[in-house]
Amino acid sequence: MSLLPLKGDIPKFLEPYLPQRVDGSYGRPFVTLTYAQSLDSRISKGHGLRTTISHPETKTMTHYLRYHHDGILVGSGTALADDPGLNCKYGGTRCYEHSPRPIVLNGQQRWKFEGSKIQELFLNNQGQAPIVVVSEEPSVKEEHVTYLVCPYNDSLKVDWRTLLEKLYHEFNIHSVMVEGGAVVINELLLRGDLVDSLIITIGSTFLGEAGVEVSPSHSIQLREVNWWRGTTDAVMSAMLCNSGNDNFV
Amino acid sequence: MSLLPLKGDIPKFLEPYLPQRVDGSYGRPFVTLTYAQSLDSRISKGHGLRTTISHPETKTMTHYLRYHHDGILVGSGTALADDPGLNCKYGGTRCYEHSPRPIVLNGQQRWKFEGSKIQELFLNNQGQAPIVVVSEEPSVKEEHVTYLVCPYNDSLKVDWRTLLEKLYHEFNIHSVMVEGGAVVINELLLRGDLVDSLIITIGSTFLGEAGVEVSPSHSIQLREVNWWRGTTDAVMSAMLCNSGNDNFV
Repeated sequence: MSLLPLKGDIPKFLEPYLPQRVDGSYGRPFVTLTYAQSLDSRISKGHGLRTTISHPETKTMTHYLRYHHDGILVGSGTALADDPGLNCKYGGTRCYEHSPRPIVLNGQQRWKFEGSKIQELFLNNQGQAPIVVVSEEPSVKEEHVTYLVCPYNDSLKVDWRTLLEKLYHEFNIHSVMVEGGAVVINELLLRGDLVDSLIITIGSTFLGEAGVEVSPSHSIQLREVNWWRGTTDAVMSAMLCNSGNDNFV
Repeated sequence: MSLLPLKGDIPKFLEPYLPQRVDGSYGRPFVTLTYAQSLDSRISKGHGLRTTISHPETKTMTHYLRYHHDGILVGSGTALADDPGLNCKYGGTRCYEHSPRPIVLNGQQRWKFEGSKIQELFLNNQGQAPIVVVSEEPSVKEEHVTYLVCPYNDSLKVDWRTLLEKLYHEFNIHSVMVEGGAVVINELLLRGDLVDSLIITIGSTFLGEAGVEVSPSHSIQLREVNWWRGTTDAVMSAMLCNSGNDNFV
């Protein structure tokens, strides 16, 4: 499906929240956390159910964001449930050249590249080959996949700082957008030390209490808040106040 | 605390969602459901905790809404937790004359008028005396309180249609705004047959998973959606699609 044209006021709205740091002074990529939710803070109707929440105009915004990032990260749950392509369709005839590198958190090795939309796009020169983040070298390796071994803790949560530093130093990835799912989002909302921008699309719908919810384990304050008003959705951009909750340092 | 001036574009934004029906053809009041929530769809940090979510400019909007309604309804949980005044401070020196009639759902007779903010405002001529909705005539009646006996079901949920019809026919209340709390909101989100307007303020904060959540028991579609962009909040106005879920007819 082709994209709607980008709304004219989106670039100015997003500009302060796009990857800015180019000197590498932090030794990690610029991290943008972005997702679409319902009014009741659900990102899907249920586990494994791909759910349309936002207007097609905000899909174009998502591809505009992808255009501006080197990497795009999702958890394996989202990779399995949504089978996302994660490429870039914004930017005209050569848009695919701007596709970010897919990064799939796959600590439990549940997701397979073989048969995925990411593979299909890669084989058609419409997307990049993925980096798959694992807790140990897999015994069977898939063609075209690059494996990144990274520490996971006992709760199967990745060590975010180490992961980001490896992406920066070993893969030259200077900006990452994180698209989900809920487990990843809820973890990163608490990492004001690692997340530079937060961009949330709010669709004008309620998905109901059985949906997959985003809500961090404790309250969070935001700063530099701005809103964009779409046809049926609103988009909020902000920065996280530093939570001081850096479990891995 | 005095109110900030009303933002200039609020009246035009709200106009299509204000009480419109004057002919009484439905035999019940126009119902506006309105509340403020965090990004993660929490209306407070926890049960019984009064929580500031929105910018003072949206508080002014709330009082502008109160100005346009005959009645203002809350559940007893909210009345107990927040001790709200429920009067109208918008409209200049004679603003209090526009205060809506407080309506407190009090099926379990937990809330007392005595000692409440509603009583204080009433005694100071800054607010109206309340209608207290009960399942049976109380043995002890408080001065200045009007009791409205209304059927409650086994789950202690009020029969909304009967309540609204009684408010209309017995108390000449042609418009009601419902301000909460979560139990009332979650019930009424499913009553597209009774709720005419939905106005939600979304504050740019996360209250966290321990907060009191709004999420209806099943998914809901909205129509006639419009957004207003505030300094730090967004406000969504909409109408509910008729749910066909009319348990009491």
